Amino acid sequence: MAVRAAVAGASGYAGGEVLRLLLAHPEVEIGALTGNSNAGQRLGTLQPHLLPLADRVLQETTADVLAGHDVVFLALPHGQSAAVAEQLGPDVLVVDMGADFRLEDAADWEKFYGSAHAGTWPYGLPELPGARARLTGTRRIAVPGCYPTAVTLALFPAYAAGIAEDEAVIVAASGTSGAGKAPKPNLLGSEVMGSMSPYGVGGGHRHTPEIVQNLSAAAGSRVSVSFTPTLAPMPRGILATCSAKAKPGVTAESVRAAYEKALADEPFVHLLPEGQWPATASVYGSNAVQVQVVLDESVGRIIAISAIDNLAKGTAGGAVQSMNIALGLPEELGLSTIGVAP
Amino acid sequence: MAVRAAVAGASGYAGGEVLRLLLAHPEVEIGALTGNSNAGQRLGTLQPHLLPLADRVLQETTADVLAGHDVVFLALPHGQSAAVAEQLGPDVLVVDMGADFRLEDAADWEKFYGSAHAGTWPYGLPELPGARARLTGTRRIAVPGCYPTAVTLALFPAYAAGIAEDEAVIVAASGTSGAGKAPKPNLLGSEVMGSMSPYGVGGGHRHTPEIVQNLSAAAGSRVSVSFTPTLAPMPRGILATCSAKAKPGVTAESVRAAYEKALADEPFVHLLPEGQWPATASVYGSNAVQVQVVLDESVGRIIAISAIDNLAKGTAGGAVQSMNIALGLPEELGLSTIGVAP
Amino acid sequence: MAVRAAVAGASGYAGGEVLRLLLAHPEVEIGALTGNSNAGQRLGTLQPHLLPLADRVLQETTADVLAGHDVVFLALPHGQSAAVAEQLGPDVLVVDMGADFRLEDAADWEKFYGSAHAGTWPYGLPELPGARARLTGTRRIAVPGCYPTAVTLALFPAYAAGIAEDEAVIVAASGTSGAGKAPKPNLLGSEVMGSMSPYGVGGGHRHTPEIVQNLSAAAGSRVSVSFTPTLAPMPRGILATCSAKAKPGVTAESVRAAYEKALADEPFVHLLPEGQWPATASVYGSNAVQVQVVLDESVGRIIAISAIDNLAKGTAGGAVQSMNIALGLPEELGLSTIGVAP
Amino acid sequence: MAVRAAVAGASGYAGGEVLRLLLAHPEVEIGALTGNSNAGQRLGTLQPHLLPLADRVLQETTADVLAGHDVVFLALPHGQSAAVAEQLGPDVLVVDMGADFRLEDAADWEKFYGSAHAGTWPYGLPELPGARARLTGTRRIAVPGCYPTAVTLALFPAYAAGIAEDEAVIVAASGTSGAGKAPKPNLLGSEVMGSMSPYGVGGGHRHTPEIVQNLSAAAGSRVSVSFTPTLAPMPRGILATCSAKAKPGVTAESVRAAYEKALADEPFVHLLPEGQWPATASVYGSNAVQVQVVLDESVGRIIAISAIDNLAKGTAGGAVQSMNIALGLPEELGLSTIGVAP
Repeated sequence: MAVRAAVAGASGYAGGEVLRLLLAHPEVEIGALTGNSNAGQRLGTLQPHLLPLADRVLQETTADVLAGHDVVFLALPHGQSAAVAEQLGPDVLVVDMGADFRLEDAADWEKFYGSAHAGTWPYGLPELPGARARLTGTRRIAVPGCYPTAVTLALFPAYAAGIAEDEAVIVAASGTSGAGKAPKPNLLGSEVMGSMSPYGVGGGHRHTPEIVQNLSAAAGSRVSVSFTPTLAPMPRGILATCSAKAKPGVTAESVRAAYEKALADEPFVHLLPEGQWPATASVYGSNAVQVQVVLDESVGRIIAISAIDNLAKGTAGGAVQSMNIALGLPEELGLSTIGVAP
Repeated sequence: MAVRAAVAGASGYAGGEVLRLLLAHPEVEIGALTGNSNAGQRLGTLQPHLLPLADRVLQETTADVLAGHDVVFLALPHGQSAAVAEQLGPDVLVVDMGADFRLEDAADWEKFYGSAHAGTWPYGLPELPGARARLTGTRRIAVPGCYPTAVTLALFPAYAAGIAEDEAVIVAASGTSGAGKAPKPNLLGSEVMGSMSPYGVGGGHRHTPEIVQNLSAAAGSRVSVSFTPTLAPMPRGILATCSAKAKPGVTAESVRAAYEKALADEPFVHLLPEGQWPATASVYGSNAVQVQVVLDESVGRIIAISAIDNLAKGTAGGAVQSMNIALGLPEELGLSTIGVAP
Repeated sequence: MAVRAAVAGASGYAGGEVLRLLLAHPEVEIGALTGNSNAGQRLGTLQPHLLPLADRVLQETTADVLAGHDVVFLALPHGQSAAVAEQLGPDVLVVDMGADFRLEDAADWEKFYGSAHAGTWPYGLPELPGARARLTGTRRIAVPGCYPTAVTLALFPAYAAGIAEDEAVIVAASGTSGAGKAPKPNLLGSEVMGSMSPYGVGGGHRHTPEIVQNLSAAAGSRVSVSFTPTLAPMPRGILATCSAKAKPGVTAESVRAAYEKALADEPFVHLLPEGQWPATASVYGSNAVQVQVVLDESVGRIIAISAIDNLAKGTAGGAVQSMNIALGLPEELGLSTIGVAP
Repeated sequence: MAVRAAVAGASGYAGGEVLRLLLAHPEVEIGALTGNSNAGQRLGTLQPHLLPLADRVLQETTADVLAGHDVVFLALPHGQSAAVAEQLGPDVLVVDMGADFRLEDAADWEKFYGSAHAGTWPYGLPELPGARARLTGTRRIAVPGCYPTAVTLALFPAYAAGIAEDEAVIVAASGTSGAGKAPKPNLLGSEVMGSMSPYGVGGGHRHTPEIVQNLSAAAGSRVSVSFTPTLAPMPRGILATCSAKAKPGVTAESVRAAYEKALADEPFVHLLPEGQWPATASVYGSNAVQVQVVLDESVGRIIAISAIDNLAKGTAGGAVQSMNIALGLPEELGLSTIGVAP
């Protein structure tokens, strides 16, 4: 019996990507699709790459429309998910691809989002210690942010193994789809092609507290994070370059061992052979994560780098992976580790 | 019982793409992978996006290595396929993604390739009238060139319906992967990013006689073709802008009707709703073709435009589609009409 | 004594480009800069590449602000130039980079723009026969559209020499800056990177009548034009691929001779040596035009291809070149034929 | 009287860029141009963007050919500059755009380049304390590496002011032209478009000791450097994201003051207004440097970010700037702070 899924916010990038993945999922049947300003339009116009859904028409995002599904994916502006989830009732699996339920600390939420904290849902990063158990059977999932996904998968093995000092320095480059589909002058093709630029510098990016939360949980103590995101001239992909001082006595071998231990059994996270480095093109369109790590002995720092597709593993792929776990389906079902390259 | 497939030339772009698609094909098991200068290397180094095959090692391209498979895909430099095919015997399905067996006219081959003509195999463009019957049960397939695929699917409906005069003017833009993986200065990222440039202008491109062959077959009489390919700053995709004078009495309605008739039942070729135009991003990574057509009444020309992924439908996807037909499998098996966008 | 220049619409791409060029012009002093919604903002924020003007602040676009300059460049939405020009008086050189005064035929204007025709000003394409005489001393200049600049320079030599039949087929690829700086979803970097797509197909693009006007003038009789513009994944540049049937008796030599004759003395238009083809990267940021032409003898068509920078020679560079002529300055003053490549 | 300049290695990216800049330099006359494998070819084929030099033909790189010039720019593979310079004699200004004479420490050279150290020449980064005096009148200049230029200009103000701890963490993204024009598979457009990837991770990049040298000189004591370069999908530009722990007591105001003091009088280095961040597009083709700095108080780190054009200020522009100083010309002569954007 198929899982019936609805997508709220189907005209945006996260919504489109979750539909792309659900179309390839053998156990899912796509139900209602909703939008706001785009309600009434054909999906063929809004998401012309989703050919099998071209004739579907967006409906309004209301509880009535979303009712009667087994799973509802929310790709809504932040602050709107709680009200929708409440109306859907406790038996529907609600997968929130927005930020509302990611943070555990209400003060963090208020500082970075300027509104009341809606709560905390099980966090959909199955690779974190204990996460699969928390996701199994849940009916509420907070999908991680794209940067926190990339950064956490690059650094948690070091913190879980206790080999890194408690200050991480992270510079990440993201494709432009991470900024969404709302048209802004700085996101025009004319502006972004040929240009790299930073934003949210100095701790101001909203993904910072989420990264701190994840790394601190892995470390068992507070990790401070300097996080600088940059916008790269590509549509998709995140390359996260992360580093931290190695603790005294840490060797190249112990670094490698920590990562092999943490990632060996992960179906989607691939620790590359020594000497090979991640590239966002290699994971384009897939749920795979490439990770590499090295100890720079001249400065005593662990350098860990990851590449993900920000829309796939970084958003919609992570959402489907967690949905699979929640529903008791095989975790890899409908997801691919094969990138579209070149 | 799985179909066992080998790929000769697995380190290049066509070889990599056919592997990407075969990995998602439910009836295919991937056997031997061969290369030339790359024999002995891990596929994880050469094709880092094909994670499930990362530990496979390329072998030499020999008959021994390729023996014992049901299907052998050839992604070899032109002129090499005949010898390999002969050694494989008549019962193995040989799918040649190169040019050797596409042309029916030996003089055309000699003029454009400067060597002896190897012969003609059933042509792997199932959408052409009569093609599916010719492909069913065959053990030899000549996969069309990428430009001929895009151009033919844009224009054959007009010629098959007898609504277009016999001179077609075609300007097509291709992503750089169409030029292959052999490093040349003019294909460096530094050169191609931010630049559009033509090549093979004035009838010199080797795909010209293949386009003439296809359109003439559709028309039932010789069609002359002015074909100008251009290199576009993107990795994948072909946008083919094609036009021909409309015959007297042709109307916008008769143009539309001709295309609806020709394409209505095609699983991969999608005639867009009026007013919507193809975009290569919409078919990125997929086997789908977007086509749109209009009659420019001010000049009496039919303008037909198509978008394909040059590596997918334009090469490896077309190859798998034809393989499915040859083997009696469902034509769409393992192939997708969903693009990876944005 | 310096020429004092004002720019109305200084926050957009055309306005920014004319400022970039005027900053390098030895006889020009930059005066008032105006915007509409951006009035009051620093240019350093709006045009961060124009470092020497970073502290200038945009004023409102009013006759008072624009008064007292020798030259006023208008980069305004269409329909607004006439009123501004009238207020500036007949002694000020008004260079309109918009469309308002390009077309000679009021019916064409009304058909393509849907408003009353404002009139016709001397057309700023100095390379056209007789154009320099018409521009000398004028106080009103209509700067050509970017596509008409590229197409006309590729084809007028054929029509002026009487070697081409009267139907031209043109497919042109433009960088995204041609679509302006107003944010629209289809112009987002996420949408345009990796994608080629057509628009205004079937004769609907507003530059069509301007191309017809220019080629017809060169031919001395009506030339019909099939024009298909496409959007290419690059910020700047136009590659125009143009063709027309050769008249009977035309040879490769007569084609070459026609182009050499028409372009030999042009300072900015460079007929490439045989065998070399234009590339938009080669003219990036410059006022140069690369042209190549060949006779495709297999189909009897003249194929002429040009590359320009749509913002430079295609807009602001053409504007400055015509300003130089109008003011009696050396035509090349302040303009470069050196592209920024790679 | 014009300065007569020769360029050895005129077919590559550095050579092409220095020619682009010298063509715009009012006091320079371009003399001999040399290549190696390209000797005998027209520059119009090799550097089609340099229209005024299209008919120049490359000569062999010999002392005879290079003799008789006032300045010789060397854009040669490393290890070749010393022999050429010696033959040119002490009165010719030799500007080496390669690495040979940048490092002061012979052990560093041997470790990173694996050959004997050729020596140390005056270092062509005029913005460093004392550099202009050392460059004035010199006849030998070692042009800095592109990454060291970007990183040093971002961080030296902090070290010169004594506000930063002695470990810097640097992640820089470079356009592909930094890797040169020699064709390699990983630099193909198909590979780099849409992809970000690191290289030389863990201290292995040859620019690391040069960065250490510069920052240590500014600090007056050894600064350790973790440097990770990444390849970005753009032809030009470096964005360097640099950080270091702030020393105790450092405030946002003291950080800003240190940068204002160090950069206030620099003609090419522009400390952006607070809240605005560098973008490589803004300095495209220009000698300008954009710098911004902030104190991230949550983690106590100074984050300094710079954007340069790697070929201009990062190579050829820096070379011309230093040449101007050496010859007693105005430092800004022939150089621009205006980027080509969008």
